[in-house]
Amino acid sequence: MSLALDTAAQDLLFREAHTANTFTDEPVSDEQIQAIYDLVKLAPTAFNQSPLRITLVRSPEARERLVQQLAEGNRAKTRTAPLTAILAVDLDFHERLPELFPAAPGIKDAFFSELEAREKAGTFNATLQAGYFILGIRAAGLAAGPMTGFDFDGVNKEFFGDGKQKALVVINIGRAGADAFYPRSPRLSYADAVTTV
Amino acid sequence: MSLALDTAAQDLLFREAHTANTFTDEPVSDEQIQAIYDLVKLAPTAFNQSPLRITLVRSPEARERLVQQLAEGNRAKTRTAPLTAILAVDLDFHERLPELFPAAPGIKDAFFSELEAREKAGTFNATLQAGYFILGIRAAGLAAGPMTGFDFDGVNKEFFGDGKQKALVVINIGRAGADAFYPRSPRLSYADAVTTV
Repeated sequence: MSLALDTAAQDLLFREAHTANTFTDEPVSDEQIQAIYDLVKLAPTAFNQSPLRITLVRSPEARERLVQQLAEGNRAKTRTAPLTAILAVDLDFHERLPELFPAAPGIKDAFFSELEAREKAGTFNATLQAGYFILGIRAAGLAAGPMTGFDFDGVNKEFFGDGKQKALVVINIGRAGADAFYPRSPRLSYADAVTTV
Repeated sequence: MSLALDTAAQDLLFREAHTANTFTDEPVSDEQIQAIYDLVKLAPTAFNQSPLRITLVRSPEARERLVQQLAEGNRAKTRTAPLTAILAVDLDFHERLPELFPAAPGIKDAFFSELEAREKAGTFNATLQAGYFILGIRAAGLAAGPMTGFDFDGVNKEFFGDGKQKALVVINIGRAGADAFYPRSPRLSYADAVTTV
C-alpha cells in the first residue's frame, strides 16, 4: 500500500531522520525557525486554539541557565547544539481565541474561563503542535533532539516566572554531527498497537 | 527561506490539508491504516516508549456506542465517516520497554514503576504520536477530523473497561466530502508565538 506522500518526503521526515545527540557548529537562523513555524502552524488544534509558544534560547547566559535545569546526560549535547528551544503551553491562550476562532468567539468564556480547563486542553493541543514542530525541524533538513529529562519546575521558574507558560519539551536543533545517532530501536508492530472493534 | 521538504509534500501535509467535517463513502482499509502506522511509528518518543494505541471502530454496534459519547455537534459527521479511530495512551506501556529500549532495560523499573509517572510521560508521548498520526493520515491522501468534544470517562468505560488505556482524541478518517471544510482561521504570527532570550 503506497502513500500519497512521495518517498523522498517520507524518508526526510521519518525513515532517514533520527534524534540527534551531537551537532555541527553550523548556526540555525531565526529565518529557518520562521520557515518551520509558518508551515507547521497550519496543522490542526481544537478550536484553532494554537496554545504552543516557543522560546529560542540563544544568549550564553540563558543557555547556561537552561543547561543547569537539564538532567546530567542532556547537558553536554545541549551546550554544543547551535540552538535550543523550549516548547511550552500558554495557559492564557484563550485570550487570543476571539481572533483565532472567529466563527464562535464565545467559546473563550464558555469553555475556558477556568485555568484547569485551559491547562488540560492547552497541554494536549500544544503537545500535538510539538509533534508537528519536530517533523517541521526535519522538513527544514535539520535534526531535532527532543528532551523531557529536565526539572520542569526549574525551567518554568527560570524562564516563565510569571506562571503564564509551562514547559513541555526542550529541543536541540541543528545539523547532525559525528556519531549523532543511536541505532534505531524496534517499534511496536501494527498488530501490537492497533486493534479493531 | 526554503525548506528541504518539497513543495508538493508541504502542500499535502499542511497548506492544502484541512480538518474534514464531511466524508465520501469510499472505505478506508486496514492496509491504508497500516501504511500510515508503519511510517509514523518511526517518529520519536522519549526512551522510544511508544505509548500510543489505536482502536479502529468499525462494527455498527461499536460505532454507535462511540457516537453516543460524542458531543452533539460531532455525532452526524462521525456516523457518516468511513472510519473512526480512538487514539489512547497505554498506561502499561512500560511492560514493553525492555524490548523497545534495549539500550537501558532498567528504565522500566527505575522511572516507570508508579502509575502517576507512566500517565504523565505516556500522555505526553502518546499525544506527540497523535500529532504524527494526524499528519500520517494526510500523507496517505486522506482527510482527518480530530475531535476532543466527547465524554472522556464515557469513552474509557465503553472501550477500555480494564482501565489500561485512556482516550486522548477521536479521529474521523476518510476522503473529504462535499463542503467538508470550514474556511481556515488565522494563525498566530511568528512574532506572537516565538520569543528569543
